[in-house]
Amino acid sequence: MTTADRPRLHLNAFLMSTGHHEASWRLPESDPYASTDIGHYRELARIAERGKLDSVFLADSPVLMGDPGRRPAGKLEPTVLLAALAGATERIGLIATASTSYNEPYNLARRFASLDHLSGGRAGWNIVTTAGADAARNFGLDDTPPHRERYARAAEFVDVSAELWDSWADDAVVADKERGVHADPARVRRVEHLGPYFRVEGALNVPRPPQGHPLLVQAGSSEDGKDFAARYAEAVFTAQQTLQEAVAFYQDVKRRALRLGRDPGTVKILPGIVPVIGDTEAEARDLDAELDRLIVPEYARRQLARTLRLDESALDLDAELPEGLPEEDEIEGAKSRYTLIVELARREHLTVRQLIGRLGGGRGHRTFAGTPVQIADTIEDWFGRGAADGFNVMPAVLPSGLTAFVDRVVPVLQERGLFRTEYEGTTLREHYGLARPANRFFDAPPAPLPGAGADRPA
Amino acid sequence: MTTADRPRLHLNAFLMSTGHHEASWRLPESDPYASTDIGHYRELARIAERGKLDSVFLADSPVLMGDPGRRPAGKLEPTVLLAALAGATERIGLIATASTSYNEPYNLARRFASLDHLSGGRAGWNIVTTAGADAARNFGLDDTPPHRERYARAAEFVDVSAELWDSWADDAVVADKERGVHADPARVRRVEHLGPYFRVEGALNVPRPPQGHPLLVQAGSSEDGKDFAARYAEAVFTAQQTLQEAVAFYQDVKRRALRLGRDPGTVKILPGIVPVIGDTEAEARDLDAELDRLIVPEYARRQLARTLRLDESALDLDAELPEGLPEEDEIEGAKSRYTLIVELARREHLTVRQLIGRLGGGRGHRTFAGTPVQIADTIEDWFGRGAADGFNVMPAVLPSGLTAFVDRVVPVLQERGLFRTEYEGTTLREHYGLARPANRFFDAPPAPLPGAGADRPA
Repeated sequence: MTTADRPRLHLNAFLMSTGHHEASWRLPESDPYASTDIGHYRELARIAERGKLDSVFLADSPVLMGDPGRRPAGKLEPTVLLAALAGATERIGLIATASTSYNEPYNLARRFASLDHLSGGRAGWNIVTTAGADAARNFGLDDTPPHRERYARAAEFVDVSAELWDSWADDAVVADKERGVHADPARVRRVEHLGPYFRVEGALNVPRPPQGHPLLVQAGSSEDGKDFAARYAEAVFTAQQTLQEAVAFYQDVKRRALRLGRDPGTVKILPGIVPVIGDTEAEARDLDAELDRLIVPEYARRQLARTLRLDESALDLDAELPEGLPEEDEIEGAKSRYTLIVELARREHLTVRQLIGRLGGGRGHRTFAGTPVQIADTIEDWFGRGAADGFNVMPAVLPSGLTAFVDRVVPVLQERGLFRTEYEGTTLREHYGLARPANRFFDAPPAPLPGAGADRPA
Repeated sequence: MTTADRPRLHLNAFLMSTGHHEASWRLPESDPYASTDIGHYRELARIAERGKLDSVFLADSPVLMGDPGRRPAGKLEPTVLLAALAGATERIGLIATASTSYNEPYNLARRFASLDHLSGGRAGWNIVTTAGADAARNFGLDDTPPHRERYARAAEFVDVSAELWDSWADDAVVADKERGVHADPARVRRVEHLGPYFRVEGALNVPRPPQGHPLLVQAGSSEDGKDFAARYAEAVFTAQQTLQEAVAFYQDVKRRALRLGRDPGTVKILPGIVPVIGDTEAEARDLDAELDRLIVPEYARRQLARTLRLDESALDLDAELPEGLPEEDEIEGAKSRYTLIVELARREHLTVRQLIGRLGGGRGHRTFAGTPVQIADTIEDWFGRGAADGFNVMPAVLPSGLTAFVDRVVPVLQERGLFRTEYEGTTLREHYGLARPANRFFDAPPAPLPGAGADRPA
């Protein structure tokens, strides 16, 4: 196999204010006002594009998360922020998180269609169901709807969105100036959706997006989440602490997709990694230790107690987690993250203080501290062993950690033939090697297999 | 009074695909795909900024409006589109229309706060309640809620939004790296709103916007609409066909504002005008006639029948409107536009065909065809006689009509001292000469008048 034929991995830059480490804003180099500074995000997107990364990605939840003292808690809304970044970049994909529990399909499908148009086909939607009573209480609810119900609504939400994106044929706009016909009304179709959660009757008021549908991404790793991913997702963001767990997750999701009749290659599995990069191993470890030293343990303990549904007083900083924690199936929301944290603490016999340190960098995502070559080695290892189709790169510190990744890790991966040296396409789907979806209403169905349907009337 | 002291008028560029005339896309110069082309909108925004206009403005409704054959019906969602335009411009305001009937306050307040942050304080929100059963049916409703109920919801929506924008003190982010305190939790306040339409309990997850609140704009001219404008609006977009009606409307809204204790100068009244500009009067009239010739009367008659709640067959192209049309108070939605159309037809004894021609350019807004000086004269006349604080400029053809306005009408207004020759501030509020609103939760109340409150305990 030549270098050119090797399968390529996918890399997204997961952007978050001054970095994914909760204490990153306290470093001398960090601008603590970066989270609302468009100039900061513009710089990050351009660095990522210089590295030929597949996309920039923004997480989101419609709620003020955690203690505003702890870390930059204010966040610009992702579809709006990415629309602004579309103009600052040319090729890189733009993936925004948006909630199916607290939006209406007509509005959200339209915003993503708009983002796809104005970016020339670079939009992706990370579909989340939004756990947590705090978010629910911003939308008139007492608490978050049950996990299963949130996923049922999410599935219907995506179905309706797809119908809306397909409500215009690709060739609906005929622009016949002579006859005075702008779009062919026969090529624009009203959606007639009536389901348990939504009723939508009109056509979208945006022509079909350049990508057909924006790329669909999903980030839940619970049982419901994996089923949802297998059915809808084209990329899955996941938190995996060990190679073994990552391989199991990878195979699980691909198998579920296959059972639903999908080509497993059309579901890209992308674990999050938090690279902490140094010229030497010691330098990387020092940066990692410096960041952990800057964590205020009281904030982190409060957050951990909330995640574990415990009273803060039950967590002794210098002891292991208490016994008798609830099982995952007793938990509503962020189920898989809950299990990951408890298992990590138990497996490595971590004290609460140590656990806080491990979570401070990536909130459950795997932190790799090392030299550029060591980080490239780990990426290659996970990729080669079938644990990942690529990675969601979560620099501990921004912009410096992204700069280091792009300028020092990416070239190693490129030399090894594992990563593109130039964009080959212009759309996010092309970066991911995914086909443009057919239009369910207007495109001809694929030709039947020879002999198939012979007994059906014509 | 010197030129420098003269009151200045305000001018917005109301952008719409190939122009406000419904047949503009059929002109040889027009790009019929412009409505989804970010390059087209970027060019328009830059032309408007070159002319030092106060803002660009985008109308919106979450529905596919009218017949897609008739004119470009696809529209990018305005908050997303304006976020993209923020990066292509530096000073000009960015006003997006968004519906209070089909959004949630937490989401929408956040998007406008985000747009304000990323544009450096240039966001405005044109608050609409969205008439029409077609829109309702995209959101699970059979029909549009009653007019009064839509306005009650709109009022509560804006109240909650203002609380959300004020949920962070301006100085909440202290960024104390030494102590590890990013924002002072005592300067971030949960909203505790419980009303007939909304319950919202959290703080916004975006710090207070640069303008405090985005500029609030309103465009309804019914009785409910004028009351709403008097209470909330800082700019009112309105359709007025005659100087006399415009003066009456102007005085009416200012009087209502005064009765509510507001300084009437803080409510800017901005009628829409459709300038059709020629080197000579004849040239302007020819362009106007050419556009009207390109209208397909069948489309327009169907739309007029819908607006008038009539069967299409009731409208004879070569006769006047039939007798016995309903009164405004029997109409739900777009009330004032309904009355304007009926009165225009009756006053001028127009046939349906003539009425269609008059509406084709600006959908009820006043069309002025003439030379640059004639158009400047009319603007000065309306401004000077107290009919307007400025205008929402709706070029019949885009970009050429905006270019003509900016390059040929604006200089005349500038020479006369009626319009700025350079931006004096950086925010939309500064362009409009409006103060940044105090924070209802964190700012000190204004000092009491001498002697006031002396009998109250300290």
